[in-house]
Amino acid sequence: MPKIADKYLVVDPWKVVEEGFDPARNRVSESIFSLGNEYMGVRGYPEEGYGGDTLLGSYFNGLFEESKVEAHYKGIIKSLRFMVNAVDWLYARITVDGETLDLAESRFSDFRRELDFKSGAYTREFVWHLSNGKSMKLKFERFVSMTISHLGCQRILFEPLNFSGTVQVKTGLDFSVLHEDQGRSYWGTLKRQEIDGMAGILGQTVNTKNRLFSAFRVEAPGQLDNKLVESDRFIGRDVLLKLEQGKCTALDKLTVNYAEKDLSLDHESVWRKGMELAGQYADLSYDQAALQQREYWTGVWNASDIAIEGDPENQQGIRFCIFQMYQTYHGDNPGFNIGAKGLTGEAYRGLAFWDTESYCLPFYIFNNPKAAKSLLEFRYKSLPYALQRAKELDCEGAFYPIATIDGTESCDLWQHSNLQLHVGTAVAYGIRHYVNITSDTTFLYEKGLEMLIQISRFYATRGQFGQKTDEYGYFGVMGPDEFQLMVNNNCYINLMAKKMFEYTLESISRMRGEEAAAFGELAERLGLTEEEQADWANKAERMKIPQDQASGIYEEHDGFFDMPHLDIHSIPVTEFPLYSHWSYDRLYRYDMIKQPDVLMFMFLYSGQFPLEEKRANYDYYESRCIHESSLSPSIHSIIAAEIGRPEEAYKFFEFATRLDLDNYNRNTREGLHTTSIAAAWMNIVYGFGGMRSDGEKLVFNPSIPERWGQYRFPITFRGTKLAVEVNKEYAYFRADSGEPVEISLYGQCYRVGVEGIKVALDQVKVG
Amino acid sequence: MPKIADKYLVVDPWKVVEEGFDPARNRVSESIFSLGNEYMGVRGYPEEGYGGDTLLGSYFNGLFEESKVEAHYKGIIKSLRFMVNAVDWLYARITVDGETLDLAESRFSDFRRELDFKSGAYTREFVWHLSNGKSMKLKFERFVSMTISHLGCQRILFEPLNFSGTVQVKTGLDFSVLHEDQGRSYWGTLKRQEIDGMAGILGQTVNTKNRLFSAFRVEAPGQLDNKLVESDRFIGRDVLLKLEQGKCTALDKLTVNYAEKDLSLDHESVWRKGMELAGQYADLSYDQAALQQREYWTGVWNASDIAIEGDPENQQGIRFCIFQMYQTYHGDNPGFNIGAKGLTGEAYRGLAFWDTESYCLPFYIFNNPKAAKSLLEFRYKSLPYALQRAKELDCEGAFYPIATIDGTESCDLWQHSNLQLHVGTAVAYGIRHYVNITSDTTFLYEKGLEMLIQISRFYATRGQFGQKTDEYGYFGVMGPDEFQLMVNNNCYINLMAKKMFEYTLESISRMRGEEAAAFGELAERLGLTEEEQADWANKAERMKIPQDQASGIYEEHDGFFDMPHLDIHSIPVTEFPLYSHWSYDRLYRYDMIKQPDVLMFMFLYSGQFPLEEKRANYDYYESRCIHESSLSPSIHSIIAAEIGRPEEAYKFFEFATRLDLDNYNRNTREGLHTTSIAAAWMNIVYGFGGMRSDGEKLVFNPSIPERWGQYRFPITFRGTKLAVEVNKEYAYFRADSGEPVEISLYGQCYRVGVEGIKVALDQVKVG
Repeated sequence: MPKIADKYLVVDPWKVVEEGFDPARNRVSESIFSLGNEYMGVRGYPEEGYGGDTLLGSYFNGLFEESKVEAHYKGIIKSLRFMVNAVDWLYARITVDGETLDLAESRFSDFRRELDFKSGAYTREFVWHLSNGKSMKLKFERFVSMTISHLGCQRILFEPLNFSGTVQVKTGLDFSVLHEDQGRSYWGTLKRQEIDGMAGILGQTVNTKNRLFSAFRVEAPGQLDNKLVESDRFIGRDVLLKLEQGKCTALDKLTVNYAEKDLSLDHESVWRKGMELAGQYADLSYDQAALQQREYWTGVWNASDIAIEGDPENQQGIRFCIFQMYQTYHGDNPGFNIGAKGLTGEAYRGLAFWDTESYCLPFYIFNNPKAAKSLLEFRYKSLPYALQRAKELDCEGAFYPIATIDGTESCDLWQHSNLQLHVGTAVAYGIRHYVNITSDTTFLYEKGLEMLIQISRFYATRGQFGQKTDEYGYFGVMGPDEFQLMVNNNCYINLMAKKMFEYTLESISRMRGEEAAAFGELAERLGLTEEEQADWANKAERMKIPQDQASGIYEEHDGFFDMPHLDIHSIPVTEFPLYSHWSYDRLYRYDMIKQPDVLMFMFLYSGQFPLEEKRANYDYYESRCIHESSLSPSIHSIIAAEIGRPEEAYKFFEFATRLDLDNYNRNTREGLHTTSIAAAWMNIVYGFGGMRSDGEKLVFNPSIPERWGQYRFPITFRGTKLAVEVNKEYAYFRADSGEPVEISLYGQCYRVGVEGIKVALDQVKVG
Repeated sequence: MPKIADKYLVVDPWKVVEEGFDPARNRVSESIFSLGNEYMGVRGYPEEGYGGDTLLGSYFNGLFEESKVEAHYKGIIKSLRFMVNAVDWLYARITVDGETLDLAESRFSDFRRELDFKSGAYTREFVWHLSNGKSMKLKFERFVSMTISHLGCQRILFEPLNFSGTVQVKTGLDFSVLHEDQGRSYWGTLKRQEIDGMAGILGQTVNTKNRLFSAFRVEAPGQLDNKLVESDRFIGRDVLLKLEQGKCTALDKLTVNYAEKDLSLDHESVWRKGMELAGQYADLSYDQAALQQREYWTGVWNASDIAIEGDPENQQGIRFCIFQMYQTYHGDNPGFNIGAKGLTGEAYRGLAFWDTESYCLPFYIFNNPKAAKSLLEFRYKSLPYALQRAKELDCEGAFYPIATIDGTESCDLWQHSNLQLHVGTAVAYGIRHYVNITSDTTFLYEKGLEMLIQISRFYATRGQFGQKTDEYGYFGVMGPDEFQLMVNNNCYINLMAKKMFEYTLESISRMRGEEAAAFGELAERLGLTEEEQADWANKAERMKIPQDQASGIYEEHDGFFDMPHLDIHSIPVTEFPLYSHWSYDRLYRYDMIKQPDVLMFMFLYSGQFPLEEKRANYDYYESRCIHESSLSPSIHSIIAAEIGRPEEAYKFFEFATRLDLDNYNRNTREGLHTTSIAAAWMNIVYGFGGMRSDGEKLVFNPSIPERWGQYRFPITFRGTKLAVEVNKEYAYFRADSGEPVEISLYGQCYRVGVEGIKVALDQVKVG
């Protein structure tokens, strides 16, 4: 795995700290110091303006623009939607004695910034040395409120070190931001106005007519003057502050942002709604909001913290991951999804992939079931789009998009959007997983089963029977391993479809038994027939799952075993990432894989496969995997832990928690790998914790990395909060609230209640 | 084969005639009545301006524009070049009594147009009924000179039927033409000026800076007035002509066009060169030029006519095809190639494909070896581009583009441009074929072998050994059958590469023997080593050619026999063409093929395959082929004739000669299927004539379709002109000039001299 850490930041258990300023790393830091509250997100860009390399990114979940795609053929998308860069609500320009601050130009010292997981705030401070000899310490503080989705808070502190005088601060709301990926701005403004100290502006996207209202007020006790300033797509205030040597003067700015995607509302209604919202928080002070923010995060850490002893780097790393998961999504705003980079950059266009169900959902299922359910509801809400998309592909039922912001397909590479079928089965797996862990059959019957039926219809019409084998499977597909571009009978897709059919039929039978009347209505509404169900059963039964009987190795797809072999270790490290250095078609001509495919389904349906089979497949596929996807190493780590390869498990794990903190992939500058860092949580809980949640019972086979003293994590299982603690000697399980639950530990059944159980660590398991 | 003729035009052995005007068919007719002389081409558009559906297309061979392509990955092209629509040098606007002629608005009768294969001219006539009751007969005549590449000639004849008076003709050169495919004009003008009655204008393309000079003069004896008119991108003359009732008054316009792609020349030099050229023909009259044109075409028909008795439709059809072949290319201008639509439209962007070597070259080899050589020289001239392209794909040697106007790759669909490897082997086959038939070893040693060596290098670096089979082949490819998008070991590609390696090695050995010194220089210049040659021999030897031993059927690619079966006759006719009606990915999931792939190599290397094998493969693949490529039916016809299926042979043939005349594919409006109609010639000579030219001797197994009385065609073989005549009783071969040659006829050897041989028709062969 040619991934090397770029160690730069200070290691701290509860913070990310950067000391000193390196312009070359500024964009990486901007990503790392991103803030978000699922409703909106801002990168850690210098709000005072910066002439160097920066991505001034301010994003709102689900707020999108659209661009046309030249489509040559039927079934290939004609337009794509992407998360659009929006208002710079942190805008500030700071001038002293005619000299305007800009870290690209100004002289400064003692630079330090930090992100505090406990307060949820990002602070940045330095001393500015003006050309006239004056020096002033500045501290910038900001947070986006986790308790009030619309609220963004900013504080700037000025402390003149060797003078008294004034500072001019131009602060406001700027809609002239560029969408970097497309090299243009997508905003026009419809209205701007100030009422009672609240300056508002209403922006609108060019193509999609999405609207964004933004209003702010300034609290600055020491101000000498304060003028409204307006210009094209901008409203703000010019504030003159009196400064006294050695004293700290603050300027607080509280902004209320409100995104409106309902096109049927007229502009005035949107404006009014925005102003009303802003009015609700007119009396809230920065300090009050900051206090609420801290309380919120205290709750998060009480509920979801993973503590690791003896490994400060990974301790910091896993907390950063959990912090980011909550920032990106926590379920307060139903109908949102999780983009591959969350709300931290424009790469992947803010789109959500199968990552949501396959990598993020487990974290929420076990920490925040409400958020998990809400994510699945995104798929329910967008079911009409999936039905439409299946039709475009000459199929029936629901075909979920490989990349989407609103439910429509937004991947303009047909080879991905038309050939990758693994989102539908990921959604089905997510429903199954969620229902299994939460027992929420209400969701299953009200929404889940309808999705399962429509997903089954798609997989029953997209597949075909082989002419020689007479087995069912999928021709012309790309599996999760994107280094095999267009193949027949990808083993992952086939197996996941088989399981999906089986779960749909099982759920039908369950609902029919438990909720006969409601089921009757559903079946009638969907036109579900017995013949259709028989067809699914037949296709599941006859699904081709190619496996070499002698070795137990599954063949990733028809013909994979004859693909030319490449010793992946012979590839010079300078050729990575291969996507950038190899001709596109060359990537697809080897037995080299990009990310787990066979191993992925062996993880997801872990209980179905004997350990020996996992070992054989791990040995075969791991040696062929180059991990060009950041989703890849954690799955390898989890299986390595399972089959007793603790060193390999730890080697792959190192990458997981610090993927962005150490900029392993050298592209953190584009944004965080939000969905990948979700895998860090899985890596600890499923990997070292050895948890498996694909069966009726929760299964644990815990181990502990050599350098760790102990680690602890909480999980919620069918309403019960379980505390799990593993150290060198034992594993300890305790139900902190709720009913006692049964778990399987090292193959033995235990009932875990408030008193807890303590079992000696199985040394065999850790190799 | 869901292809139905649209019978509309009058059948005539030496003309295409349209009687009456149907606006809905105007664009189809514009394509059919296209004129060209390989240097330039014009569609049969109404030069007087037409408010209805028209494509005003004026094209110059190799004159191209360029547009950027958003390329996601390495090895995918970043810009594409296309033949650009250029100056309307036929521009004319005709006004009588303030009323301007426009067939979309004006009243008219007695419309008739014709294309005369003997004169090479296109004429169009009708009677215009003005709203004031006046009637005038108009006749438009035009041709592009086959003897003077730069010259275009136009004559308009006016005959007032019931009045005497005047007509105003605004005639000129218009650079404001739109490139329809891109919806914009690509021309600016650099200069315009009139000198001594010659009005010139110099245009330049926006991106590529190609320049086009155009100058014209008017001869109109009865003119009353004549004024220069200039406007943006236009220069012309307003001519007032006196008309007398019942008398014919002519306006002749002779235009000299000159395209300059050399960017190093300054504008003034180009202008001067253009004016000098125009000066050369300043005294040439329309009638003189027309006479030269008729003489040229007389020569063509003496040399290349195919005469068919008893089948007027196909007689007309095959002459139309031969006429188009000569119009598109005849070798006077080296460095040109043949676009899929010749110079008759913008579809396929004026690009040349493997069609040139695979479908067009045989016609030239046997009719016009100079032109054949010149086509191969296009590939030699563009070898540097092919070397560069191979590098972009991480390979060595030369990778010839799947679609090109100047030698660079211009197909923006990576699945075609990166996966289709069959141009290189087509070029190699073309060299082999040309050298075999002409004995031109000078070309082989000076240019051909260098190409062969570089092509071999590509195929030796692009291929790989299968991990299980240890056989050599090509992974991740698309063969000629474009309904199998990305497969391994396409049988056609593998077999053609094997043969190509063998021919390269054979040619090396031959040149080494015959021209040792020159070979030494070549080998040194190219760095050719013995190891390299041994590698090619090894790869040829170990090439995978999958075949089912029991049935003799070749497997089109790995896994083809397991592809889900589709009864192609079950597809509703309304779903054709499938490219427009089926989801793109769905096309690739069946054992359905688009065009011959296995059958194609069985035709090209006919001598290598026993008849029984051809029969088995024909039965298998024909029943799975939907002929979505217009290149397809002729090959099926040729093999059907060979295996004794005369009715099927004729059924497929019907499509060949009249593909555009009867608008079989319903897309002739976009331009002629120039390279496909080249196959019509092959269909007769290789199909019914039963000729095979892949061995040392020419082989013939003639048959005759039931409805034909007899047919005749000439071919040139190693300098000897052979006349071939087949009727119901016998086949007759005679050497009209040159040395006697040996041929194989029904498996017997004959020596054919001036006295000719006559052999009874083998009735068994025609089924």
